[in-house]
Amino acid sequence: MKTLLLVGIGAGDPDYITYQAIKALRRSDVIFLMDKGAAKHKLNALRREICARFLDGHTPRFAEGQQPEREREAADYRASVDELNRDKQAVFEQLIDEQMADGETAAFMVWGDPSLYDSSIRIIEAIAARRSDFVYDVIPGITSLQALTARHRIPLNSIGRAVEITTGRLLAEGWPQGVDSVAVMLDAKDTYRRFVGHGLHIYWGAYVGTADEILIAGPLDEVAERIATTRAEARERNGWIMDSYLLRKEGVARE
Amino acid sequence: MKTLLLVGIGAGDPDYITYQAIKALRRSDVIFLMDKGAAKHKLNALRREICARFLDGHTPRFAEGQQPEREREAADYRASVDELNRDKQAVFEQLIDEQMADGETAAFMVWGDPSLYDSSIRIIEAIAARRSDFVYDVIPGITSLQALTARHRIPLNSIGRAVEITTGRLLAEGWPQGVDSVAVMLDAKDTYRRFVGHGLHIYWGAYVGTADEILIAGPLDEVAERIATTRAEARERNGWIMDSYLLRKEGVARE
Repeated sequence: MKTLLLVGIGAGDPDYITYQAIKALRRSDVIFLMDKGAAKHKLNALRREICARFLDGHTPRFAEGQQPEREREAADYRASVDELNRDKQAVFEQLIDEQMADGETAAFMVWGDPSLYDSSIRIIEAIAARRSDFVYDVIPGITSLQALTARHRIPLNSIGRAVEITTGRLLAEGWPQGVDSVAVMLDAKDTYRRFVGHGLHIYWGAYVGTADEILIAGPLDEVAERIATTRAEARERNGWIMDSYLLRKEGVARE
Repeated sequence: MKTLLLVGIGAGDPDYITYQAIKALRRSDVIFLMDKGAAKHKLNALRREICARFLDGHTPRFAEGQQPEREREAADYRASVDELNRDKQAVFEQLIDEQMADGETAAFMVWGDPSLYDSSIRIIEAIAARRSDFVYDVIPGITSLQALTARHRIPLNSIGRAVEITTGRLLAEGWPQGVDSVAVMLDAKDTYRRFVGHGLHIYWGAYVGTADEILIAGPLDEVAERIATTRAEARERNGWIMDSYLLRKEGVARE
């Protein structure tokens, strides 16, 4: 048998790592790396830093898979995700076949938490469903939204109310019904700007928990343009950006 | 100056603690305890276990505040929460005044993450707004929903879709519009039973991450009664229950 651990490592500060994740990494023989694009170097540096700092001298091997790029502007979003996930699955299987001996444990260090806007669980479950030689487990991690709310020192929800976690793509279709708080991830297009004039408060953050952290909060009407400019400049300067935000209806923003 | 750290300790397994939380506790002179009700003993035992295991011999003092009970069946939910929070604020201020010397750091160990259905941030912000002698910070922690999804090895969201985090009380008003995944906390009334016959899949868990953990998943129509019975028995046996669940429309449940 081979064991694969999907380990959430938190989003940003290496200190977001949980003790459960540290224990999982300490019992891993090999760490799978599969990042792509501009953030790859930063993310893998963070992973190596975590291993160097927390594994008490244990040194797992690193094995890098070549993850294909997703076509960001594809007309059919769902089809392009499906295609990407089939490619990822092939890469994972190759790593399992070629980089692990029987009886070994591999860890895949997932940015944030494997349960939130991450495809690893679905991919590994698909592989596990048709192989009898491997088992897997999931270890939660601090998400970028939790880093965002902690650094702004705000609750995610207002008292007794619901919160929706969504994407920039979905938010572009309109404000979700029945909620006063909306947390937005994966927004490449400054979708919050569409909601200027709607009485919203925004709590925005980029690279939260890292040395490059930028936080901006305020009435959306007052800070939207500053966020857009700051975001564009930071993305240009760093070559990539990792940001998220919370929008809240003004009446409940500071209750 | 006095410093108060709102430290998320995770929900269930002591190993959910982050390294950031461990560092915060190691620099704390005193730990505030404020629990109430049937879960108090278990929660405080968990807090003491975390301190004993992770603080490298550092032994902060423990100071217990007497937290008033909320009237659960109050007609005006919001007013009763407000009243409870005013009481809590008075207890916190008393702890700050009587249990901390100038220059000291106190930690309040919050079950889960202080950002999710927890009043600590609002209360401490209200205190900080009218005192100049103290500062505070927030440290995120693994929520019971993250423990739930990790133990069921499922994503919180379906591909590219939104998820709503809500309460049993709100869910009783109907299925939230526009989402296929709904995560439910604070449901004392088995509200999921109202949605039998709606083509939903449920992932339920109680005491997740602890030795008492119970997990049940399946088509809601098939497992709802088993969950209700199991839940009632566990609550009776343990004297309290801490559970949550994810409901997902069937078509996307296992995609």
